[in-house]
Amino acid sequence: MGRLTADAEAATQLAAQVSSEQFKAIFRHHPGGVAVITLSGPEGPVGFTATSVISVAAEPPHLAFSVAAASSSREAIDSASSVVVNFLGDDQHEIASQFARRNIDRFAGVDWSPLPTGEPLLAGTTGWIRGTIENRVAVGDSLLVTVRAEAADHVEGPSPLVYVDRTFHRLGPHSRLG
Amino acid sequence: MGRLTADAEAATQLAAQVSSEQFKAIFRHHPGGVAVITLSGPEGPVGFTATSVISVAAEPPHLAFSVAAASSSREAIDSASSVVVNFLGDDQHEIASQFARRNIDRFAGVDWSPLPTGEPLLAGTTGWIRGTIENRVAVGDSLLVTVRAEAADHVEGPSPLVYVDRTFHRLGPHSRLG
Repeated sequence: MGRLTADAEAATQLAAQVSSEQFKAIFRHHPGGVAVITLSGPEGPVGFTATSVISVAAEPPHLAFSVAAASSSREAIDSASSVVVNFLGDDQHEIASQFARRNIDRFAGVDWSPLPTGEPLLAGTTGWIRGTIENRVAVGDSLLVTVRAEAADHVEGPSPLVYVDRTFHRLGPHSRLG
Repeated sequence: MGRLTADAEAATQLAAQVSSEQFKAIFRHHPGGVAVITLSGPEGPVGFTATSVISVAAEPPHLAFSVAAASSSREAIDSASSVVVNFLGDDQHEIASQFARRNIDRFAGVDWSPLPTGEPLLAGTTGWIRGTIENRVAVGDSLLVTVRAEAADHVEGPSPLVYVDRTFHRLGPHSRLG
């Protein structure tokens, strides 16, 4: 069973509300794989970096990700019917940074090509999934988007990019536990 | 622009469906921070390991996670009104494994105590968030759960646990890029 000190601290915390700042601080320390989500917008290719991509169901395959209210891609997601999730490798952290920057052409200098269905596919990733948007759930001031996977490919070998505490990390034997 | 070979491969992939196996293989290589989600069930404390916890909104603070159809905790989640997300540190991979095992007392030997609101709080984590379940979205054969954060605490210092490709990893200066 737990420690009395933990109990007392917990009771104090329960009495307070969670501030946005505290919530963000906790998730800043929660690691995530890094993806660039791309779609075909009315004015050309759209893409944004996401560390919130999760597998939801395997049968049939579905994933989910969140889009903040303030995201410059929010409008494009609202009107898109399909997206591609491009999973970045550990040599692609500059692409991750580029697709998180505002007021630039995020595709400038990036090696990409449109899928036959129109969505931009980034080169050099560890894998990708194309799918149809099924649900857009309004959660707080954000959107939780669910996607049914319809096409995919991946390569064995390259190690995935990880983001935590505003820094990028590489996983491998050097980081492995146990 | 992209490579012709990538285009040809992509067209081939688009013609096929995504199998559950291929989908799982892609997400096996997508890293995630590790949490144990706990709740107070009708027959005592319930907990399960989750690598699908994401921040959805900061204002007001909301998170989400997925629960597979086959999860032994599915029924408990269906009837719970609140949960605690316990974020594991890099010295807690044995707890992560224990809370993923079937047909055992997952709380055996684990240092925990109930919050005043009843949910089990694990000791030694990097932080925790208690919240109320707001949405249960049926996605494929799984459930996507959204939670409004109501209480939280975290400690600065310990490094978070990461899971990828069936192995646990520690992040730090040794894994940092750039």
